[in-house]
Amino acid sequence: MSKVIQHIGIIGSGNVAWHLAHHLKTVGISIDWIYSRNQETGIALATSIHSTFEKEIPSKEVDLVLICVTDDAIQLVLNQLNDSFQAAYTSGTKPLNELEFNGELGVFYPLQTFSREREIELKEVPFFIESTTSTFAQALFDLAWKISSNVQFASSEDRKKLHLAAVMVNNFSNHLVFLAKTYLDEKGLNWEHLKPLIVETAAKLANISPFEAQTGPARRGDEVTIEKQEAMLEGTTKIIYELITKSIQSTYPKK
Amino acid sequence: MSKVIQHIGIIGSGNVAWHLAHHLKTVGISIDWIYSRNQETGIALATSIHSTFEKEIPSKEVDLVLICVTDDAIQLVLNQLNDSFQAAYTSGTKPLNELEFNGELGVFYPLQTFSREREIELKEVPFFIESTTSTFAQALFDLAWKISSNVQFASSEDRKKLHLAAVMVNNFSNHLVFLAKTYLDEKGLNWEHLKPLIVETAAKLANISPFEAQTGPARRGDEVTIEKQEAMLEGTTKIIYELITKSIQSTYPKK
Repeated sequence: MSKVIQHIGIIGSGNVAWHLAHHLKTVGISIDWIYSRNQETGIALATSIHSTFEKEIPSKEVDLVLICVTDDAIQLVLNQLNDSFQAAYTSGTKPLNELEFNGELGVFYPLQTFSREREIELKEVPFFIESTTSTFAQALFDLAWKISSNVQFASSEDRKKLHLAAVMVNNFSNHLVFLAKTYLDEKGLNWEHLKPLIVETAAKLANISPFEAQTGPARRGDEVTIEKQEAMLEGTTKIIYELITKSIQSTYPKK
Repeated sequence: MSKVIQHIGIIGSGNVAWHLAHHLKTVGISIDWIYSRNQETGIALATSIHSTFEKEIPSKEVDLVLICVTDDAIQLVLNQLNDSFQAAYTSGTKPLNELEFNGELGVFYPLQTFSREREIELKEVPFFIESTTSTFAQALFDLAWKISSNVQFASSEDRKKLHLAAVMVNNFSNHLVFLAKTYLDEKGLNWEHLKPLIVETAAKLANISPFEAQTGPARRGDEVTIEKQEAMLEGTTKIIYELITKSIQSTYPKK
């Protein structure tokens, strides 16, 4: 029954729903409706793309119901969906075989961090596709291909691993910036001075491996600086400093 | 005795020496000589900017000797320098009052990560200046101003704190990418898929605070995903995962 996906309904109105809705609309996909438990953000999203906010999941046919909700809500949504629907969800971690649905079900996972406040380019963002049937997988692939030039099929297992790596490079790095900013705030120093460094830290990895790109006291084995810096910190930040420093040192053992 | 700095000698031939030499030359500063314990990289640097490599520190006068060496080597270099020289060093951590030198001494610290393989824009890079005299501080400020539009005076104390924050956002984030890449390599997955995410992680911080920018299972309080991800990891990476996850959770306590 899979065919080219033209008309979709979106369930959810968080960051992922927001960005996918806007990008899909831009490439000519019709977003027939938005449904969301959160009426306020749901209406805001529907309004922003000139779509309709629905108070209940409609039974009217669309080519795809795109489920952009938290992992623990996916099954609850599927329970309310008519079996005649084709549905896909955007989670990085939820395995396909843990979900029960009699209609066709697939995965449409963009490996990226989304914030409402920020417009984002999707062209290079990897999308990982999976489905119970190859025809539906292909339809989802083609849909992703309209907004990204980096679309892959991936098993639930591989997707889970990629998501874990994404947590480390995005969530954890962002938290390190939060801790550094908190430290500078406390000392009355301006964290904005870190911004060019933050951008360059990411940018240099475009053509240098993280092993080669590593710099700093731990890489140099500069024990004097390391000791002084540890003494400047306290609490969780100090423990994180010590742990990552040791991990860097063991990556570059002294000759 | 401070005057406009036109002629400089550079001691050191590492990443910082390399990039400062090239940028200073570009804005019309004459790099009269390069001295380095490492002859190979010293000659390579001198050749690349059409300067002279010296086998010993020359006694011929220059307006500034720029010392781009590791912290523990700065004093050793100063011991060999003629007191008639004005000297500045590029360290983020070495306090000015821990160094002994009878000539004028200052700090010329660029808060950035430098790798030989990568060209870098310095215009937005913050430079932190300090000196034993205000006239020399001003001369160093003016020199930095030729290559950057973000130049500040900063005490040794503040510079040390900024450097520590820089270690956290650069060195540590880069190591997280290394750990994520190592994990994906082991699983036969392509770490290149993380690159758009890495770039966006940094880019979104241009106009969103790290507190607002935080996403992911720890921020959402998604215990199921956190437990599964911990079970997928081992060794140091697992410990780092647990520690940073806890730190994020305590930053966004459940209501």
